[in-house]
Amino acid sequence: MTPSSDIATRMTETADRVTVALDQLLPRVQGPEQKLMSAMRYAALGGGKRLRPFLVLETGRIFGVDERALLRAAAAIECVHTYSLVHDDLPSMDNDDLRRGRPTVHRAYDEATAILAGDALLTLAFEILADPNTHPDANVRCQLVTRVAQASGARGMVGGQMMDMIGSELGDDIAAVTRLQRLKTGALISVSVEAGVMLGRAGEEAGTVLSSYAHDLGLLFQITDDILDVTGSEDEAGKAVGKDAEAGKATFVSLLGLEGAKERVRYLATQAQNHLAGLGPRATYLSQLVDMIAERRS
Amino acid sequence: MTPSSDIATRMTETADRVTVALDQLLPRVQGPEQKLMSAMRYAALGGGKRLRPFLVLETGRIFGVDERALLRAAAAIECVHTYSLVHDDLPSMDNDDLRRGRPTVHRAYDEATAILAGDALLTLAFEILADPNTHPDANVRCQLVTRVAQASGARGMVGGQMMDMIGSELGDDIAAVTRLQRLKTGALISVSVEAGVMLGRAGEEAGTVLSSYAHDLGLLFQITDDILDVTGSEDEAGKAVGKDAEAGKATFVSLLGLEGAKERVRYLATQAQNHLAGLGPRATYLSQLVDMIAERRS
Repeated sequence: MTPSSDIATRMTETADRVTVALDQLLPRVQGPEQKLMSAMRYAALGGGKRLRPFLVLETGRIFGVDERALLRAAAAIECVHTYSLVHDDLPSMDNDDLRRGRPTVHRAYDEATAILAGDALLTLAFEILADPNTHPDANVRCQLVTRVAQASGARGMVGGQMMDMIGSELGDDIAAVTRLQRLKTGALISVSVEAGVMLGRAGEEAGTVLSSYAHDLGLLFQITDDILDVTGSEDEAGKAVGKDAEAGKATFVSLLGLEGAKERVRYLATQAQNHLAGLGPRATYLSQLVDMIAERRS
Repeated sequence: MTPSSDIATRMTETADRVTVALDQLLPRVQGPEQKLMSAMRYAALGGGKRLRPFLVLETGRIFGVDERALLRAAAAIECVHTYSLVHDDLPSMDNDDLRRGRPTVHRAYDEATAILAGDALLTLAFEILADPNTHPDANVRCQLVTRVAQASGARGMVGGQMMDMIGSELGDDIAAVTRLQRLKTGALISVSVEAGVMLGRAGEEAGTVLSSYAHDLGLLFQITDDILDVTGSEDEAGKAVGKDAEAGKATFVSLLGLEGAKERVRYLATQAQNHLAGLGPRATYLSQLVDMIAERRS
């Protein structure tokens, strides 16, 4: 088996198990408010790469963390990610009709239901993290709540989306685009790796190299996203493409050029893998993930 | 001083201190995403009765809880309440232009900013609760996160708002309206009292009577809200009135009649105060609060 099919299989397996975990953690569809639960499930169980859960699981496995705990933390972070997609897709934000190859939540249901389903998914994430089943030590659970909240709030993901909304006022240099990415997608990718580190009570040294890895991986992911927005097809991406250029937004491609962006991808991929060197074969899948993202077509 | 001016003064003092606490806990207005912080502050610092914080503080005081801890928990719950108002006011939900006598957040800013400011306020609430400054014992902090999340999520406040949105399909009996109220406003009022109990590590007996008190108080608050929607003026309420009748929504007034609703208020007020009897003078302010709500005009 080639390394690339190896990681692809592993990612699919992980994605399936995270979906099962989410299915169990999401509220049942019942009661007069069942439209809400139905929309939450539509959003969270509708596929996706499950990149963030994969990072939680593979990082935690390095430190021998119990798989059930990892799946809970992974599901919680995926709830945060899913809520952010549901809200970002709304008419008053990015106004997208398609997500993961299906109608967005406000299209499949309605706008009010999409807002409420997003709110409930975000709330559920913290309920999952604070539950004793996620970790026997309440200090670790509080740490998870704190870091996930920081990564997703005004100084993290939501702040990044705000910057994205006011895009044209930000200036169009590489520092501004990098900061936006760092907040909008990087923070949650970083906290996914960090969750595995926290649950595994890994030492400071391992924490630092994995944090550097996550930093580069997040940037790598965003640059390839910008490249796909230019070169990809809507069918492959499962969402609208070409929107950044249309909106006149500064992206890594508009700033570095297509070749420059691809070069930056290669540079970051090498750097991300170098961070992992000290962890040896335990980090094989995290390393293969770098190649997979660098070469991704959707 | 009459009891009524006594409680009014105490509520104003508490509200001021909660506003100061919120001011310190909310992110500064800075960075390219500062519009977000500005909207969060506009929403959270714009007044309001601060009923939920008052409940956290007065309950916690019964058990001698450190005031700084109470203010943090109170501020967190007020963040949840504020976010719910910001989202409920949106055009796709209740479409309100006025809140606490000022333009709603989506009117003062824009819709996208209102959605994001709500998201960030909800996220901040959990960050505050999980912080060691809220309580030295991480188990208590996790319990707070869990219960606030449960009270605010799909099986609590957000579920109640969903029911409110699909109102006409719910049936118009008193059981349906009571269940909606229980979720939409009752759950967060109950968890405010519960937070004081949790922080004070109060015994089971005190917890049970205070939980019954909170249950009746929440219902009382909603019935008086329904009465004010019929009898109040927009000036006094600081928000639009008469909307429920206009929307054909079943309310306690439409189901019980104005006199029937007022009678229910008197009954609930007596019952709520009876729950407190065993706590003696320590619960004076919680008791006076019942009268204040029963007689409120805004």
